[in-house]
Amino acid sequence: MAELRRDPIVGRWVIVDTENIHKPEDFEYEQYISKGGETCPFCYGNESMTPPEIECFRNQDTSSNTPGWQVRVIPNKFPALQIEGDLERRGLGIYDMLNGIGAHEILIESPYHYKDLPELLDSEVENIITMSCRRANDLVRDSRFKYVMIFRNYGPAAGASLEHPHTQIVALPMVPKSVAEEIKGGQNYFEYRERCIFCDIIRQELQEKERVILENKHFVSLCPFVSRFPFEIWIAPKKHNGCYFRISPEEIPSLASILKETISMVKKVFVNLSYNYIIHSSPINGSLGTEYYHWHIEFMPKLMRVAGFEWGTGFYLDPTPPEFAAKILKEASVSR
Amino acid sequence: MAELRRDPIVGRWVIVDTENIHKPEDFEYEQYISKGGETCPFCYGNESMTPPEIECFRNQDTSSNTPGWQVRVIPNKFPALQIEGDLERRGLGIYDMLNGIGAHEILIESPYHYKDLPELLDSEVENIITMSCRRANDLVRDSRFKYVMIFRNYGPAAGASLEHPHTQIVALPMVPKSVAEEIKGGQNYFEYRERCIFCDIIRQELQEKERVILENKHFVSLCPFVSRFPFEIWIAPKKHNGCYFRISPEEIPSLASILKETISMVKKVFVNLSYNYIIHSSPINGSLGTEYYHWHIEFMPKLMRVAGFEWGTGFYLDPTPPEFAAKILKEASVSR
Repeated sequence: MAELRRDPIVGRWVIVDTENIHKPEDFEYEQYISKGGETCPFCYGNESMTPPEIECFRNQDTSSNTPGWQVRVIPNKFPALQIEGDLERRGLGIYDMLNGIGAHEILIESPYHYKDLPELLDSEVENIITMSCRRANDLVRDSRFKYVMIFRNYGPAAGASLEHPHTQIVALPMVPKSVAEEIKGGQNYFEYRERCIFCDIIRQELQEKERVILENKHFVSLCPFVSRFPFEIWIAPKKHNGCYFRISPEEIPSLASILKETISMVKKVFVNLSYNYIIHSSPINGSLGTEYYHWHIEFMPKLMRVAGFEWGTGFYLDPTPPEFAAKILKEASVSR
Repeated sequence: MAELRRDPIVGRWVIVDTENIHKPEDFEYEQYISKGGETCPFCYGNESMTPPEIECFRNQDTSSNTPGWQVRVIPNKFPALQIEGDLERRGLGIYDMLNGIGAHEILIESPYHYKDLPELLDSEVENIITMSCRRANDLVRDSRFKYVMIFRNYGPAAGASLEHPHTQIVALPMVPKSVAEEIKGGQNYFEYRERCIFCDIIRQELQEKERVILENKHFVSLCPFVSRFPFEIWIAPKKHNGCYFRISPEEIPSLASILKETISMVKKVFVNLSYNYIIHSSPINGSLGTEYYHWHIEFMPKLMRVAGFEWGTGFYLDPTPPEFAAKILKEASVSR
């Protein structure tokens, strides 16, 4: 019989199919084959094709908007939100609106068009992490913003419109719904137990080991007990910390390594995979939730189309139990 | 500048791009081209390929599981939930579980493999509605169930694994998260104003007319002010009613007609479109929310891939303002 599992943080129920388990070979996913060829605005030498850079790690003897950079941050050329202006709330009968103030930046992760994170050097991934934290810490100083959303779409099935690997950084004047729900759940638990629910989950997972994929000094990566998608993975710091970009410098190599290795394991099982990950972090300028929120990365491989009822109901069906997914990932990493 | 709009029911924020508006020709969606050919278990003559029928509208002189039917309901051959057994709740450390009890039925909408709703006769669509209500009213009598979810995936991009048009009916031992949130929002509003928030929204929309697509005696179809997706449409009864399957018989022709005509309008603009719709209705066996919940259909055309941040954050970007979408749909219906 299948199991219905309830997410302890947000109360979402998921059907986990423990009977007709989908194995890796059962997924007919859209493979990401590079189209290559065309001129890429994110590649070396094409710096003038993008808006001027906001911040950059580059060789000392090079000048802005020329080659010689390692990580480059630019404004999105077609931003949905604009940075100039005052926040204006207004009503329209029963509805509420806000003008579209925000920031939308693109972090070009490396000069290499064809290198995903696992193919980069550890130091290169550390640069990406350091730069995303620098940008977030800069955006936080703008009191209009309530949240900094950092995410990555890799491959067309994951919604990436440009091939060259990049991370997106969006500053918003409100807290997104899913994060607000997680914070609410964390707060309820904290009021009851005076502990962080994420810390308790991580403690239980590290004891049981069944769903843990990787663990290093500062981080753990695991298939969550209430996975919405097959082979969903969370990466979280073992020590409590609400805010991603307050990560301590000594944790960065640890994060770079677990991120690289986790994605590498998934891509060994699913070649040419498209995927997304999103960094969930506590809101800013109000410091809501730093006690009971715990930052983490949610990694979602694009293995299945999402049908109608998931959208309409927030109710998911996961055909691969996370215990099984974790086992597959660990075996693949050993055997190949 | 773009607008940030807040859903008055669940508090979700959506970026509505009012500047770089996506027009119908800007969407490169996956067209649904039938593969045909193979033997379809839902077609006339193949009744023995499915589990035995649960309920059926069929010609008097025909016997069960043979041709001669108009609408046919069968159990899902590969159900994620099973009907037999007692509900057992249990904990696993911090987690909560329930065994996979539920019902999963398939309503085969007509004998015609290639006819979507707009191509059916009004009376045929009425049969589908009547039958789905009958099944829901039957499932409600099982006190283990708390919700009956009725939805339709049309086309492969919408997650339909079989071509022959069908509706799915799933009975669940819990209330799905999205519906629970809508009920909570409706309840908050009701406590404050002693009115149904959905009724107030419908009243405002019918006055403004800007987002209304169609209206008949009992129903309205409109592009919601806070659309998550381009060309998202809601169909709702004008008179307050929390529960879909308590619809009065005289409303059924009105619903059949607006449903057919709405889908027909969308498919005039987007040929070979895949889409989903979900019927949102109040929970059962506890009669939560009948005062402040208002049943409705949420229709979602599959025009775009959903990128990462929507999943991870519950925060959406709609590149086609609903006012513009409504205008396009109305013009297309007149001109062609």
